[in-house]
Amino acid sequence: MAKEIERKFLLANEQWRGLAEAVPYHQGYLHADRHSTVRVRIAGNEAFLTIKGPTQGASRNEYEYRIPIDDARAMLDELCPQPQIEKLRFTIVYQGFTWEIDEFLGQNQGLIVAEIELDNEQQSFPVPEWIGTEVTGDSRYYNAALCREPFSTWHDHRP
Amino acid sequence: MAKEIERKFLLANEQWRGLAEAVPYHQGYLHADRHSTVRVRIAGNEAFLTIKGPTQGASRNEYEYRIPIDDARAMLDELCPQPQIEKLRFTIVYQGFTWEIDEFLGQNQGLIVAEIELDNEQQSFPVPEWIGTEVTGDSRYYNAALCREPFSTWHDHRP
Repeated sequence: MAKEIERKFLLANEQWRGLAEAVPYHQGYLHADRHSTVRVRIAGNEAFLTIKGPTQGASRNEYEYRIPIDDARAMLDELCPQPQIEKLRFTIVYQGFTWEIDEFLGQNQGLIVAEIELDNEQQSFPVPEWIGTEVTGDSRYYNAALCREPFSTWHDHRP
Repeated sequence: MAKEIERKFLLANEQWRGLAEAVPYHQGYLHADRHSTVRVRIAGNEAFLTIKGPTQGASRNEYEYRIPIDDARAMLDELCPQPQIEKLRFTIVYQGFTWEIDEFLGQNQGLIVAEIELDNEQQSFPVPEWIGTEVTGDSRYYNAALCREPFSTWHDHRP
C-alpha cells in the first residue's frame, strides 16, 4: 500500500508542449463509488490494476499491481462499463519535481490537467509558468467521474 | 485470464471429515454485481485479488493475482463492506479429482458446500458418497451473495 498525495491543476498555456513524449493511456473502472475505486489501466506497453480508497484532502490510499496487458485488454473490453478514459500522458520534471500532464481524448477532448505527487500535503514546490487554476478536490475532474460525466457534458464552450 | 468451470454441491453426510486439514479463509468484496466481482482473499498465509466476470452456466472468466498479505488485510479492514466471509477450506482429492469443501463460519455458520473444478461443463466425474444435492447456479450460494444475505437469514432451521 502507498499513500497517494497529489495536487491537480488546469494548464495556463501551451508552453509545456514539446517538453515530453506522449504515452497513450486507456483506463476503465470495475468499480467506482465514494468508498473505493478499482481501475484497469493500460499505460503504453504496461498494464496495472489499481485500488484506491476514499479521498481525504489531497490524500488517498492506493494499492497498485502490475498485470498482463492481455488481461487488462480483456477486462476493459468485457467487464468495465463504457465510456472509458483515453488520454495522452506527458511526464515532465521541473526543478526536481515530476509533473504528469494528461491530455484527454474522446468525450473528454479539450480537457488538460497537470498533477504533482507530493510527500505530504503541506510540501511546497516551484510552480511552472504553464500551471493554471488548482482543481484538487473538485470531484468533476476525477478520472472515474470523467467516465460517467465527460468534460463535454459540463464544460462551457463559450470563448 | 482463466476460465473457471465449477459445479457446487451440498454435503450428504460427515464422512469427508478427517480427509484433509482445514485452511482458514477470509474474504470480502470491493465490488459485486451481475457484471463482475472484485474479491480480496486471505487463504492461510497467502493473499489474492480476484476479478470474475458474469456467470454463464457453470463457467466464469477469472483473473487472479497474488498480492501482499498486508495489502489484503488493509483492504478488508478499510475498503470491503461488512459482513465478510470467514470459512475453513478442506481440499480433498477423490479418484484423481480435486474437491474443495468450504465450512462457513460467522453469520453463515451451518453451511457447508463442496466444489469441483472441471475442464468443461460436460465433463463427467466420480461422485463421492459424501456429496449431496447440486446447487450450481443457485445464486444464494455465491460467496458474494452470502456476504449480503448470509445463510442464517434464509436457511430453514427446523429439523
